[in-house]
Amino acid sequence: MQAWVDGRPQATLGLGNRGLAYGDGMFETLRVTAGQPRLLRRHLQRLAEASRRLALPLDLAQVEHEIARYAQAMGEGVLKLIVTRGDSPRGYATDPAAQPQRILQASALPAYPPSHASTGVVLFPCTTRLALQPALAGLKHLNRLEQVLARAEWQGGAFAEGLMCDTEGRVIEGVFSNVFLVTGRTLYTPDLSRCGVAGTLRAELLARAGSEGWVARVADLTLGDLAAADEVFVCNSVYGIWPVIACGELKWPVGVVTRTLQRLVRALLDS
Amino acid sequence: MQAWVDGRPQATLGLGNRGLAYGDGMFETLRVTAGQPRLLRRHLQRLAEASRRLALPLDLAQVEHEIARYAQAMGEGVLKLIVTRGDSPRGYATDPAAQPQRILQASALPAYPPSHASTGVVLFPCTTRLALQPALAGLKHLNRLEQVLARAEWQGGAFAEGLMCDTEGRVIEGVFSNVFLVTGRTLYTPDLSRCGVAGTLRAELLARAGSEGWVARVADLTLGDLAAADEVFVCNSVYGIWPVIACGELKWPVGVVTRTLQRLVRALLDS
Repeated sequence: MQAWVDGRPQATLGLGNRGLAYGDGMFETLRVTAGQPRLLRRHLQRLAEASRRLALPLDLAQVEHEIARYAQAMGEGVLKLIVTRGDSPRGYATDPAAQPQRILQASALPAYPPSHASTGVVLFPCTTRLALQPALAGLKHLNRLEQVLARAEWQGGAFAEGLMCDTEGRVIEGVFSNVFLVTGRTLYTPDLSRCGVAGTLRAELLARAGSEGWVARVADLTLGDLAAADEVFVCNSVYGIWPVIACGELKWPVGVVTRTLQRLVRALLDS
Repeated sequence: MQAWVDGRPQATLGLGNRGLAYGDGMFETLRVTAGQPRLLRRHLQRLAEASRRLALPLDLAQVEHEIARYAQAMGEGVLKLIVTRGDSPRGYATDPAAQPQRILQASALPAYPPSHASTGVVLFPCTTRLALQPALAGLKHLNRLEQVLARAEWQGGAFAEGLMCDTEGRVIEGVFSNVFLVTGRTLYTPDLSRCGVAGTLRAELLARAGSEGWVARVADLTLGDLAAADEVFVCNSVYGIWPVIACGELKWPVGVVTRTLQRLVRALLDS
């Protein structure tokens, strides 16, 4: 399906675009099933947060309407929305009157091996560290060189994802996923107020944990916490949940909490 | 003058471009005078460094040839080169065989008030901090949201530049300049191994200081060091050198070392 720019079919972008020049903008990647964008509320919430913190005044009702129309036309797949600060002359200064630009693109669901979800995945322990930048932490902004460098650390199919720590050694996230640890009835996921992308499925799991009988905690987590966990899983809003069975020397079983959450998430994303 | 993409006139870019998606690439901004790109060796050196550290295998002889041709056609102004990792399917994974993409754009010299160079400038003390990321430090990569946020902290003409510190409080750079302090016969400029952009004019000044009778030192610098300096100036390869006369409560005179370096730099950039 052809891309849309500001609501109209368009395949290209001007070279003065600030998304290209500075990574000046943010993006969202939505799973579309049966013509419906999944976890749409969560994606719009994160856009609203990015809009506020990057001072990019976005008309969220318009964005929601466009995503709904585009998803309907797609039917199934991955919908990527990029919001940039549009074009500007050279230089970092922003024009307060500039209208944010909306780019919608469709792609097929990634063809991950079914075993990722069933028997679990092995994480590559990335040496690329996430810098501590509270001004950008949590946002899915367009400055993603850390992820590009981390993803380039491994090739081939032995590792489905990589594990990233921050520059002070805390466990933060996967390259394109969030991380959860399960210890007893408690779900732990890293605090993302210094770095990391606060995923929409992460937010959904944190919100639902209570009603499912678990306790959810956002905390600073170390590799020692990871080693001590009963279960570990990674998640994102496209593939759902993958049990993690190993990372470096560490190993975990695929546990009952992970399996239960997988069923819950499948209902949210797939059906 | 029309932009070139990979050596040919082209005004647009595909939406799958990794420069847009992830800021996956780097750029250079060259002053062009009398058809000649100035400080070209230094710009090519920084490109080579970025090419190596971002694993973007660039044909530097080709880049040099293109810049020379484009600058000749421009005559005078600012030449901006953006190098991206080209297009790719969705996802952070890079294709080792992908050819980097070269974008050349021309713009007029910025119309800075002549007083910036003559009577000096006042720096805005930015509250946006630079994160510590040794993997990207020194490079002029396309992930520049910190600069966008910092530049948005002030409006109007009272401040010509902003001063940025890192997240641990060290003085690092301007938003679009490097910073030097002068104390006696010694030039100090911040160490940029944790964050910051290692400017080409900064490199040129460091290399020339010895032959001009000064000592040049790259060091960790604090606001206290700034306060104690005899002279302060900011520089970049487009405007040259601006004396700094104030930042917040701090004030400095326009000193003889700054004036001497301005003459030297004018010869490099303007004539």
